[in-house]
Amino acid sequence: MAKALCPGSFDPLTYGHMDVIERAARVFDQVYVTIFQNDAKNPLFTVQERVEMCREAVAHLPNVTVDAYHGLLVEYAKRQGISIVVKGLRAVSDFEYEFQMAQMNRRLDAELETFFMIARPEHAYLSSSIVKTIARFGGSVTGLVPPHVESRLLRKFGRSV
Amino acid sequence: MAKALCPGSFDPLTYGHMDVIERAARVFDQVYVTIFQNDAKNPLFTVQERVEMCREAVAHLPNVTVDAYHGLLVEYAKRQGISIVVKGLRAVSDFEYEFQMAQMNRRLDAELETFFMIARPEHAYLSSSIVKTIARFGGSVTGLVPPHVESRLLRKFGRSV
Amino acid sequence: MAKALCPGSFDPLTYGHMDVIERAARVFDQVYVTIFQNDAKNPLFTVQERVEMCREAVAHLPNVTVDAYHGLLVEYAKRQGISIVVKGLRAVSDFEYEFQMAQMNRRLDAELETFFMIARPEHAYLSSSIVKTIARFGGSVTGLVPPHVESRLLRKFGRSV
Amino acid sequence: MAKALCPGSFDPLTYGHMDVIERAARVFDQVYVTIFQNDAKNPLFTVQERVEMCREAVAHLPNVTVDAYHGLLVEYAKRQGISIVVKGLRAVSDFEYEFQMAQMNRRLDAELETFFMIARPEHAYLSSSIVKTIARFGGSVTGLVPPHVESRLLRKFGRSV
Amino acid sequence: MAKALCPGSFDPLTYGHMDVIERAARVFDQVYVTIFQNDAKNPLFTVQERVEMCREAVAHLPNVTVDAYHGLLVEYAKRQGISIVVKGLRAVSDFEYEFQMAQMNRRLDAELETFFMIARPEHAYLSSSIVKTIARFGGSVTGLVPPHVESRLLRKFGRSV
Amino acid sequence: MAKALCPGSFDPLTYGHMDVIERAARVFDQVYVTIFQNDAKNPLFTVQERVEMCREAVAHLPNVTVDAYHGLLVEYAKRQGISIVVKGLRAVSDFEYEFQMAQMNRRLDAELETFFMIARPEHAYLSSSIVKTIARFGGSVTGLVPPHVESRLLRKFGRSV
Repeated sequence: MAKALCPGSFDPLTYGHMDVIERAARVFDQVYVTIFQNDAKNPLFTVQERVEMCREAVAHLPNVTVDAYHGLLVEYAKRQGISIVVKGLRAVSDFEYEFQMAQMNRRLDAELETFFMIARPEHAYLSSSIVKTIARFGGSVTGLVPPHVESRLLRKFGRSV
Repeated sequence: MAKALCPGSFDPLTYGHMDVIERAARVFDQVYVTIFQNDAKNPLFTVQERVEMCREAVAHLPNVTVDAYHGLLVEYAKRQGISIVVKGLRAVSDFEYEFQMAQMNRRLDAELETFFMIARPEHAYLSSSIVKTIARFGGSVTGLVPPHVESRLLRKFGRSV
Repeated sequence: MAKALCPGSFDPLTYGHMDVIERAARVFDQVYVTIFQNDAKNPLFTVQERVEMCREAVAHLPNVTVDAYHGLLVEYAKRQGISIVVKGLRAVSDFEYEFQMAQMNRRLDAELETFFMIARPEHAYLSSSIVKTIARFGGSVTGLVPPHVESRLLRKFGRSV
Repeated sequence: MAKALCPGSFDPLTYGHMDVIERAARVFDQVYVTIFQNDAKNPLFTVQERVEMCREAVAHLPNVTVDAYHGLLVEYAKRQGISIVVKGLRAVSDFEYEFQMAQMNRRLDAELETFFMIARPEHAYLSSSIVKTIARFGGSVTGLVPPHVESRLLRKFGRSV
Repeated sequence: MAKALCPGSFDPLTYGHMDVIERAARVFDQVYVTIFQNDAKNPLFTVQERVEMCREAVAHLPNVTVDAYHGLLVEYAKRQGISIVVKGLRAVSDFEYEFQMAQMNRRLDAELETFFMIARPEHAYLSSSIVKTIARFGGSVTGLVPPHVESRLLRKFGRSV
Repeated sequence: MAKALCPGSFDPLTYGHMDVIERAARVFDQVYVTIFQNDAKNPLFTVQERVEMCREAVAHLPNVTVDAYHGLLVEYAKRQGISIVVKGLRAVSDFEYEFQMAQMNRRLDAELETFFMIARPEHAYLSSSIVKTIARFGGSVTGLVPPHVESRLLRKFGRSV
């Protein structure tokens, strides 16, 4: 089985992302976790910080590599010889947005196939933005993100680790 | 029946909010209408203005108090000894967002229960943001918000009352 | 806090139902678990069997009683002096149907309030009908329904316990 | 403006249907209220009864005629020279089903256009099947269907009028 | 058949918009394509540029005129003597937002009717914002927007045509 | 890449099913198209007829085999050494049902992964039941199902081919 792409903002990576990455790594020979830089969003972490957090999180998965790209997903996939995109779905609103993206990507590159995995039920409420809100107000994000991501969040919001 | 929390931005309070507050006040001994200050949003009214508008709107309800908080909902609920959150639901998009928040709040505090009430059909289209859009362009918001909120909106957008 | 009604078909009762009943029993003084007999459906268990299964399941909850009724929910609620209905919501399709029922019930009796609780994530996929399908084909329903319900399902489908 | 078709089962006609028919009759020159006989459903009223109920309900609308058809909607529309179908939408589940039907009808006849009108909020919970359930159990359907439909429902369920 | 209004941001106009406009132009005597200026959004094209792009796109449709308005839709419709709004629906999220707007517009002006047309399946994934994202990163938008809109997008993002 | 399962009723197979099967056959080494016999449904075609129609449809795909099974999907997958299920998604209602099934299947067998592919836009309205409705009333299903399925439908509804 060829290469698979797990695209995202990963601002920051959560255990919801980790679940999808680990399940993809069991099925595919090679998994690319790639941070796409969306100009429209105002991220909390720099691309470099996000790459570092992802690298540390997938260090135990030999067939997973972390990358960042400023450009279209279809362009990146073509360059890397990737023909499968893997995305997690949590809810109906995810579904509609991802449906739009998958249809558009197939239009831009007919060879590119998107596979959706349904998130574990316990991650259905988990998102990077809810994690940032909790951390901003001093709530605990233990169990929502890996420990090294939690440390970075605490530092970012000026709390001692 | 213990205390219930009606959280929100209330920027400004609408008759949709009032309906939920009044229905909650019939069921629960004590209802807290609490303005949570979300850094991400750019509000039209200051927290102080919103507190004043809510206070005037619930003056006839002896078991309802108005408050404001800068922090996590679960933290506020714990401080006040509140174990029930009451929210109105209008539509599917509400449902998904509120589902996420309720699941996350239960994770942060297992004792905190969220009850959803379905909005009256005639309020299904009513939101603070649609009220602001109408008022901004000089449309009438009579019947959508209490008269004292309408006056404040007119003044905010530079119209004589 | 007055009486609350947990209506349903309970054909059979699942751990999803139990979660809603137990959470309601912590909040309300008295909880009525009531089996409504819908002529349109073709149930697997008789009303009497369903009452027995529910009774056994809630035996540890002193403020919960089990009942059955052939008629409209609003009529039953009025007879019992109940003003609050409690329902679990799992997904968007639930939401739309329950929205319709709650609106109709409020129209038939303006005093009757419906509160929705969001199902635990791990019960989001759980329904009586999926439990029956699994049991029919000999799959294990351990962990989806209480042990005494599992025994009844096995007997119903002609398997030794 | 040419002819418009309001298709349905009308088993029985409700005030939700009436609202769509009346709004269509204000916009279009000629409106056809047509009962399509779906073999799959098990109707409460015969086609003849449904035609009678619809005729009585639209008697005050000079540009509305009532009809019944056993066959495909696109075929009927072609025969009558109708190029516009008008449907009411209440909720998301309506939307998906109607989307499917409208797409399929356009595929079968590229000239046939479907226009959707959003139901009044107070009809969002109203359906023929909920009306039948209420009437079956002796609840009041006054205000949900026209008086002559209510009388027919009472007789159908063996209650004196 | 009277006048119909196709409102939007048209930032920029896509073939999805064109499909709705052309279908409306076949049914209605006069179609107004009107750019509403929403203060909240940060558009890519100026109102003047958007008017020009729309004018060029509908030049072959004798009964379609292009306009821009800074104010409420209901106000504009009243001034122009328009009683019908035509909107395209792509997905569930569209549906909820458009439902809200249509209900609010009917409340502000009871005479104003909104008709929804379902987008062609091949346009279900098409939006102005996805077109802008593709163009920003140098992807091809041929077949998604008219050629003259494509040229404007290329110039806007500093690419030679 | 291991084996993949395309489960369904296939009553009858449509071009929507074919699209998913062909896309799966490009990605996976071996694809099982398996008809699951659901007691609850009242099929138009016998299992044997459906197997024959599927076999003829996939004859050009060397790595696709057709099978039928009376039992649980997880059980079948285990017997055949299949760890991946592939399903097509058309709309939100599909999503919720398939979400439920995928979660339940993972619970019954933690090794079983479900991948969802989004249907081509032109198949978004296509289903076996809509095909049967059209054929029943004598409409053309050319282009919706393969020619040999169309012939079978015509014969089933007593029309000469």
